[in-house]
Amino acid sequence: MAVLGAIEAGGTKFVCGIGNEQGEIMDRVSFPTEAPEITMARVIEYFDGKNVEAIGVGSFGPIDPIIGSSTYGYITTTPKPHWSNYNLIGKLKAHFNVPMGFDTDVNGAALGEYTWGAAKGLDNCIYITVGTGIGAGAVAGGQLLHGLSHPEMGHILTRRHPEDSYEGFCPYHGDCLEGLAAGPAISRRWGTQGAELASDHPAWELEAYYLAQALMNYILILSPQKIIMGGGVMKQEHLFPLVRRKLQEILKGYIQHASLAADIDSYIVPPGLGDNAGLSGALALARLGV
Amino acid sequence: MAVLGAIEAGGTKFVCGIGNEQGEIMDRVSFPTEAPEITMARVIEYFDGKNVEAIGVGSFGPIDPIIGSSTYGYITTTPKPHWSNYNLIGKLKAHFNVPMGFDTDVNGAALGEYTWGAAKGLDNCIYITVGTGIGAGAVAGGQLLHGLSHPEMGHILTRRHPEDSYEGFCPYHGDCLEGLAAGPAISRRWGTQGAELASDHPAWELEAYYLAQALMNYILILSPQKIIMGGGVMKQEHLFPLVRRKLQEILKGYIQHASLAADIDSYIVPPGLGDNAGLSGALALARLGV
Repeated sequence: MAVLGAIEAGGTKFVCGIGNEQGEIMDRVSFPTEAPEITMARVIEYFDGKNVEAIGVGSFGPIDPIIGSSTYGYITTTPKPHWSNYNLIGKLKAHFNVPMGFDTDVNGAALGEYTWGAAKGLDNCIYITVGTGIGAGAVAGGQLLHGLSHPEMGHILTRRHPEDSYEGFCPYHGDCLEGLAAGPAISRRWGTQGAELASDHPAWELEAYYLAQALMNYILILSPQKIIMGGGVMKQEHLFPLVRRKLQEILKGYIQHASLAADIDSYIVPPGLGDNAGLSGALALARLGV
Repeated sequence: MAVLGAIEAGGTKFVCGIGNEQGEIMDRVSFPTEAPEITMARVIEYFDGKNVEAIGVGSFGPIDPIIGSSTYGYITTTPKPHWSNYNLIGKLKAHFNVPMGFDTDVNGAALGEYTWGAAKGLDNCIYITVGTGIGAGAVAGGQLLHGLSHPEMGHILTRRHPEDSYEGFCPYHGDCLEGLAAGPAISRRWGTQGAELASDHPAWELEAYYLAQALMNYILILSPQKIIMGGGVMKQEHLFPLVRRKLQEILKGYIQHASLAADIDSYIVPPGLGDNAGLSGALALARLGV
């Protein structure tokens, strides 16, 4: 069975691992994200001699995942110091002459869940992470969703709650979804980390208010067969029923489908691959390597 | 060359036509949408003896376009009298034993523009109609976008303009995009049909405010390579530059791509197929017939 390499390239940490085409992960290592020359040297050192037959990279973004583009394989306009316009795949290809798959961390996670996880056997799904930022990836008709570039679903505009005076922290849009509902918005609005807030704290109703609007828009635009929600904020499991209920309230029965009615508990779910969703996503990308 | 039948099944009128695989339309007829037994009798009469080798139907909705579903080929939960749970494809199949393609009018129009029109040669696009309602269809990765069902993009929630006190007319959501920005919203808000309002009337800035938010969400979620805007309201051509400018204002440069900067005039465009977009879309659906 082919030995595949997987790289979950996050803004805070990199996770590298070895797995196979069945999605099994045999080995992993993790280290903080520093400047590219330091971090990529550790990546290369890790894979050296492991004879991987392909490598998949699920990366923080924005990136260029469009095959044939002159900047394919780059992390593009990130504000993260030193990583802007960094040719990540070029660096790897200089050391390992194997097929490589490259996409956003969330497109990777969506593909992993589609291949081995909560969306296995379906044709499409979306994967949303709600953590230090908000991002989402999608599989549609069995393919990763691309176009001009990759989706940037975390930056959609939702309606503000009338009692929410927090201005939002997105450096581009202020109070887009990410600006109002990612982890830093919770901690700045309430002065406490979300993990410290009781499950009946009003923070969670507000969080569900914003996330449900996002899901409504994703559903009306993409019609996914499964919605998978991961990331640090979604570790608060009590959020799931709040989000499901709010979504039903605002959809007002417009889409008549069991997934949005009796079956909603199995429609909006945590990652089937659990904490492996990111690394498994990178492994799934390795299978698409070119 | 194969003779193909096309049916643009609208809530107000039906258009039937004969065309070919190159998208040429050789004949057409139009009649008002009445009860199904009357309207479908005229459809069947039109195609009788024309020896079409396939038929495509782009229909008002909601519909069930999912092949294999027990209600495939039905118009499903429409409030339109007599058409709810109507087996349109079943009726046609009882008279014409040929492959048939069936999708929403807007998914059809997106496919037509992708095949022969403004998005020819691209991998994906969206087609939005702004008329008596708002709907949108999409081609993603060369395929029509489906999932649970078809997209219902007209019902997304946008932020209300602070000076807009109109409550919206959507029977489900009140002030969703369709409720605030479709043709009836313009005429009810201002007491005059949109076509009667001067191009410097404040109605148009408000219209652009809502449509630009919708495009922002569609772009961030689907990353389309081309956005095609049709329908009666978009006949006001002065709306295009207003929408493009508002979109750039609210995106705030987040997506760095020429299509959203210097090339925006060729990114957000009227239908390449003009007033044939609907019927050509049905023709394109005939080519996918099963």
